Amino acid sequence: MEGKRNGEIEKLSQDEMKKILKNTRGKLAMQQQLIKEKKLPVLVLVEGWGAAGKGTLISYLIRDLDPRFFRVIPTKAPTKEEKRKPFLCRHMQNIPEAGQFVFLDAGWMEETVCDMIDGKLKEKELKKRFEEINVFERQLVDNGYLVLKIFVDVSRDIQKERVQKLMDEEDTRWRVGKRDLDQLKERKKYEKAYGSFIGETNSEKAPWHVIDSGEKGLVELQVCHLLVDGIEKAIQQKDIPVVIPENKFSMMPMPKLDHVDLAKELSREEYEEQLNAAQKKLKKLHNKIYNKGIPVIIAYEGWDAAGKGGNIKRLTSALDARGFQVNPIASPDVHEKNRHFLWRFWTRLPKTGHIAIFDRTWYGRVMVERLEGFCSENDWQRAYNEINEFEKMLTDWGAVVVKFWIHIDKETQLKRFHEREATPEKRWKITEEDWRNREKWDQYEIAVDEMIQKTSTEFAPWHIIQSNDKYYARIQAINVVIDAIEQKLKEK
Amino acid sequence: MEGKRNGEIEKLSQDEMKKILKNTRGKLAMQQQLIKEKKLPVLVLVEGWGAAGKGTLISYLIRDLDPRFFRVIPTKAPTKEEKRKPFLCRHMQNIPEAGQFVFLDAGWMEETVCDMIDGKLKEKELKKRFEEINVFERQLVDNGYLVLKIFVDVSRDIQKERVQKLMDEEDTRWRVGKRDLDQLKERKKYEKAYGSFIGETNSEKAPWHVIDSGEKGLVELQVCHLLVDGIEKAIQQKDIPVVIPENKFSMMPMPKLDHVDLAKELSREEYEEQLNAAQKKLKKLHNKIYNKGIPVIIAYEGWDAAGKGGNIKRLTSALDARGFQVNPIASPDVHEKNRHFLWRFWTRLPKTGHIAIFDRTWYGRVMVERLEGFCSENDWQRAYNEINEFEKMLTDWGAVVVKFWIHIDKETQLKRFHEREATPEKRWKITEEDWRNREKWDQYEIAVDEMIQKTSTEFAPWHIIQSNDKYYARIQAINVVIDAIEQKLKEK
Repeated sequence: MEGKRNGEIEKLSQDEMKKILKNTRGKLAMQQQLIKEKKLPVLVLVEGWGAAGKGTLISYLIRDLDPRFFRVIPTKAPTKEEKRKPFLCRHMQNIPEAGQFVFLDAGWMEETVCDMIDGKLKEKELKKRFEEINVFERQLVDNGYLVLKIFVDVSRDIQKERVQKLMDEEDTRWRVGKRDLDQLKERKKYEKAYGSFIGETNSEKAPWHVIDSGEKGLVELQVCHLLVDGIEKAIQQKDIPVVIPENKFSMMPMPKLDHVDLAKELSREEYEEQLNAAQKKLKKLHNKIYNKGIPVIIAYEGWDAAGKGGNIKRLTSALDARGFQVNPIASPDVHEKNRHFLWRFWTRLPKTGHIAIFDRTWYGRVMVERLEGFCSENDWQRAYNEINEFEKMLTDWGAVVVKFWIHIDKETQLKRFHEREATPEKRWKITEEDWRNREKWDQYEIAVDEMIQKTSTEFAPWHIIQSNDKYYARIQAINVVIDAIEQKLKEK
Repeated sequence: MEGKRNGEIEKLSQDEMKKILKNTRGKLAMQQQLIKEKKLPVLVLVEGWGAAGKGTLISYLIRDLDPRFFRVIPTKAPTKEEKRKPFLCRHMQNIPEAGQFVFLDAGWMEETVCDMIDGKLKEKELKKRFEEINVFERQLVDNGYLVLKIFVDVSRDIQKERVQKLMDEEDTRWRVGKRDLDQLKERKKYEKAYGSFIGETNSEKAPWHVIDSGEKGLVELQVCHLLVDGIEKAIQQKDIPVVIPENKFSMMPMPKLDHVDLAKELSREEYEEQLNAAQKKLKKLHNKIYNKGIPVIIAYEGWDAAGKGGNIKRLTSALDARGFQVNPIASPDVHEKNRHFLWRFWTRLPKTGHIAIFDRTWYGRVMVERLEGFCSENDWQRAYNEINEFEKMLTDWGAVVVKFWIHIDKETQLKRFHEREATPEKRWKITEEDWRNREKWDQYEIAVDEMIQKTSTEFAPWHIIQSNDKYYARIQAINVVIDAIEQKLKEK
């Protein structure tokens, strides 16, 4: 198998080893405080053979850690509900907050290898799976995570001996699963699958560490050492900007905002007639996507007072209330801010057959967070690609992804702000922040133009909705959604 | 069936009805802003026969609502994972935040009625179930929730007709489930079950509203009316103190804190020997509870610097890392603060066979929240009973519940504060807040004494751990946990 092997330590005598071990564990305990201070999130993925001692290893690693700052998560086979989300969804859910450890007792490797063994993945799907895992891990590292991947290796003889020992005792018999016995029977097959997984997901930023668990104590020492080392390096490199990769996605040509014609409008009669027809159509399509298990993600961005709320309402009032959810996105809660910026969107994805509407989205990263300095320049520069990769995973999963920029001009916004202030039941909609944002209109326009240019991929292009006339905008948006769903239904 | 029936409206003519309907829907739309302002959480539970039009009703109700302020949640049969938590857990999870609506398309009624029909509940269990539901609903209302419970009734003939219509069309056939067909076959049985559920859970604070869905439009009008009415009343009554019920639980006699002997101690040798033996025992017990599916909940409270952290560590280092979780409890996040104060604990309960340790707990309500004025006097006065009810549900579910007050005297705290300040790697543990809390020692002592007196129920008594000597405290705590688990294993 590929992956780094730590050779030096293996040559030490028992006494020397004990000394180093004590020393290393002391260091790890000291580092805890540093991790908290520097807000470093540490993800330790422990994969390996059944009965190789993954649990024992994790128990050892946490022995000196403050239990308030780590979580151990054993990953089981995905549930029915989990299978209705993208593969990475439940793994993304488990990533640590800044300043905390998460130890995963198996994770995306085990799930994938089981799928491989069970013949659940065609070659193309497997390739995509590896790609997604590599993207996932790289994004974590680029966003400041320490990702330490351990594979605990063990010979078939020792594995067999340990499984037997577990089976011999009443208290531990339940620990031996079907999969463990299967591994003993089909050693070669599993070896090949594990090996191929390690080969395909061994990257510079998140390399595999294959550790032999044959000799007692050695595996703990090696991993402890890796952890201490990794934390030290991660903290040193914390604020070094990441090289922004070249864009590799095909883009749709998009106009600049100030070239968009905003004069279009509909009469009230035209509007009502067209809305009625469109809503009827959408209602039928909602049934169909439920039936076929197609997830739909609709993202709304736009100027303040552009009419997002009313637009969303015309869409949702055509939908079965049990099949959609609107996610209003405000500034992140503490536990959200402390994770990868896409985490709070990953955890709000729809199930297959459902519709998730986002009222403001992950594009906050390249708009408000960029302009208000809530993230570093490197963070938002990198985000275009990270977002494209995210949306690629969604469409590859089978989702319809529709993105709206609800557009008005500056005069229309002013008119609507004044209207809101003059109408008692609308006054809550207008805040000081809206006025402050308005002052930055030109800076926002630059950011939005750049965003639209850099994230209008072929699989998830932006739709600029002309919303000086709200009627026209609503019909336009609902028709875009209808078209996108019909297109997807044709492909199926 | 029992429950209020709205008789007046039924006598109106079609024209009058339409007028009232328009008027009522207008009011509901206007109330939205009020709900947000007054931070009223609104939970609308829509139960009823299959094909009675629950979904249509909900779609109607939300038509004029801002999609950012409501969620519609369809409740399905519980998953395997959900079955490993207390019955109410997944329903509690769904309650709205302050200022928001949640519409439940079926909920705890449907689940219970299905269990009744399927013969899954013995008489005693059913009685307990009804009790728990009544407690749950009353607690929500007492904590400021509007809980509106609708049962959509329909005759067997109309139900049959509607099911047939759904089956006739390809697009809607999937909507008809086994349960719907069963209801047609076994009408009487279901009638009895629904009737009994309504009778047993019809309370003054959360009454049932049985609405006949035979005539089109009427059900919408009636429910809309109920909603508008309910919101109005709930807002009027929002700050009226709730009558605190008499305690109905048997209590254990407990000493006052200043009567606790703090002179006990262990030598290092005694400590190490006893700890070693206790940890070995606990390790074995952890396997057993996993095997038997017993959930364990361990709650830690105590003075600052009393040694909670070290105490927890000695406990967890004996446990399999995959079978426990430590929940550090700080001040609530916004989304937690906006819900029933027990919500963030309900959502952190262990699965069967697992251990959840809480480092600070739901008792914050009657300590820091009481003393700092974070909740009203009525809130914390009421909380003793609400907490006892909560813990009763946990022990009835089969959980071992252990509660520790880690106790030291004022001089010991001062010594430890100074120690922490003098030790570089411990300095982060001591903050200004600790000093501020120390100034309020006497007030805290009164609150803690009252808490211990009022919540030491027979099923979940407090254990005061003498912690002037940390060694003595650790051995004491781990032995309490061992005893509690052994006791539970004997009962099984």
